[in-house]
Amino acid sequence: GFPGAPGLQGQRGESSFLYRSAFSVGLTTPTTTTDTPLHFAKIFYNEQHHYDDISGKFRCFIPGVYYFTFHLTVQGQGCKVGLYRNGRVILLTLDQFLTADLDQSSGGAVLNLSSGDQVWLQVYGAEQEEVGIYADINNDSTFTGFLIQARLPSSPLDNRRR
Amino acid sequence: GFPGAPGLQGQRGESSFLYRSAFSVGLTTPTTTTDTPLHFAKIFYNEQHHYDDISGKFRCFIPGVYYFTFHLTVQGQGCKVGLYRNGRVILLTLDQFLTADLDQSSGGAVLNLSSGDQVWLQVYGAEQEEVGIYADINNDSTFTGFLIQARLPSSPLDNRRR
Amino acid sequence: GFPGAPGLQGQRGESSFLYRSAFSVGLTTPTTTTDTPLHFAKIFYNEQHHYDDISGKFRCFIPGVYYFTFHLTVQGQGCKVGLYRNGRVILLTLDQFLTADLDQSSGGAVLNLSSGDQVWLQVYGAEQEEVGIYADINNDSTFTGFLIQARLPSSPLDNRRR
Ligand SMILES: [Ca+2]
Ligand SMILES: [Ca+2]
Ligand SMILES: [Ca+2]
Repeated sequence: GFPGAPGLQGQRGESSFLYRSAFSVGLTTPTTTTDTPLHFAKIFYNEQHHYDDISGKFRCFIPGVYYFTFHLTVQGQGCKVGLYRNGRVILLTLDQFLTADLDQSSGGAVLNLSSGDQVWLQVYGAEQEEVGIYADINNDSTFTGFLIQARLPSSPLDNRRR
Repeated sequence: GFPGAPGLQGQRGESSFLYRSAFSVGLTTPTTTTDTPLHFAKIFYNEQHHYDDISGKFRCFIPGVYYFTFHLTVQGQGCKVGLYRNGRVILLTLDQFLTADLDQSSGGAVLNLSSGDQVWLQVYGAEQEEVGIYADINNDSTFTGFLIQARLPSSPLDNRRR
Repeated sequence: GFPGAPGLQGQRGESSFLYRSAFSVGLTTPTTTTDTPLHFAKIFYNEQHHYDDISGKFRCFIPGVYYFTFHLTVQGQGCKVGLYRNGRVILLTLDQFLTADLDQSSGGAVLNLSSGDQVWLQVYGAEQEEVGIYADINNDSTFTGFLIQARLPSSPLDNRRR
């Protein structure tokens, strides 16, 4: 007999458009809190609400590789800030302050997160001379993160073996 | 009869490969302009020409979520710079200067743009003591942006229902 | 006779998830080396091992557009650092230091790389007063890069013409 009909076309390739996660937020006032996450109330972008503006923490809903970065205005005293993941400090940045020399402090890292992981910024240590994070309507201090690469439940290579 | 020929390979996944937008540019000289966009003439990357080196503005051709960041050399006087979107200041960064303490000022944000939106950097305010953006062959001051996630006309999920 | 059974379903289409490259590393000690790449031994992320922690250089295995950024702690003296590509300085950042005013220096750029290209950070020039890059357990100095957009061997548009 004749050969059968050709098989169905393969599935569309895995798409990155299904995996979205990004946030970008800013402080609205100076902060002197040392024992809790910095609380960013100015929202540049938070469409997926993965940054929780109540707790001040980013929560990972899509496992994968993320980039986080922050840019802080340092005024009045030094500023020592940590990027935390689940209660552990990943990255520490210290900027010292001299009278009339307001500065910018910044940092960033790529992190591989699992679902439920939380990431936030927090003043490090209790030294009162190092909580000089400043912000007002003319001076932003920001925290930003976004998904670079989602980690799929099953890899495309696995799919190809089927 | 024999089985039919295998089906055709599936379409390439709805992928970010079709949606490209990134630029990275630098100043070549110090600037004291306060009423127009900073004009970055050193091109690190601008393949799609979405950064217009005549106007100094990035123009959005692919609606979606972008990351913008800048790193400026501050010399001679303070530096107060805004990240603008369509004539409105989104983000303000001030760095003060002391004699012999050249500094770096930086900032960044994620923004959700529509086609035709324009984004640029501009000195904020007319105070002559805060236009100390410095650049020469040994000191870069840069402005960078790139598409994180395109916003598709129809979502992949819609496609799958067909 | 009857036609044969239908053919097998086609392969899944090309996926963007196959193209991964990101690294994020930090210094563990102050450095005064001026003639070799900075050597970052603290690993935040380097799953694909495209950052070579022996040479201190990132090596491009996936041709495409990358974002690189660094955030350095400046202490004790000024800090003049270059972002190098294959032996050529792409970007230079200088931060000066005053007693008791530890600073942060930062920079970044988008670069279009080909396979085999190498990118690294290195102190620029031999002036002994500008090698003040500081790092210890409480002060991070980091270097980060990640793939924004892979350059495919054949473009999706070409494939669609077949
Ligand atoms: Ca300053
Ligand atoms: Ca300085
Ligand atoms: Ca300082």
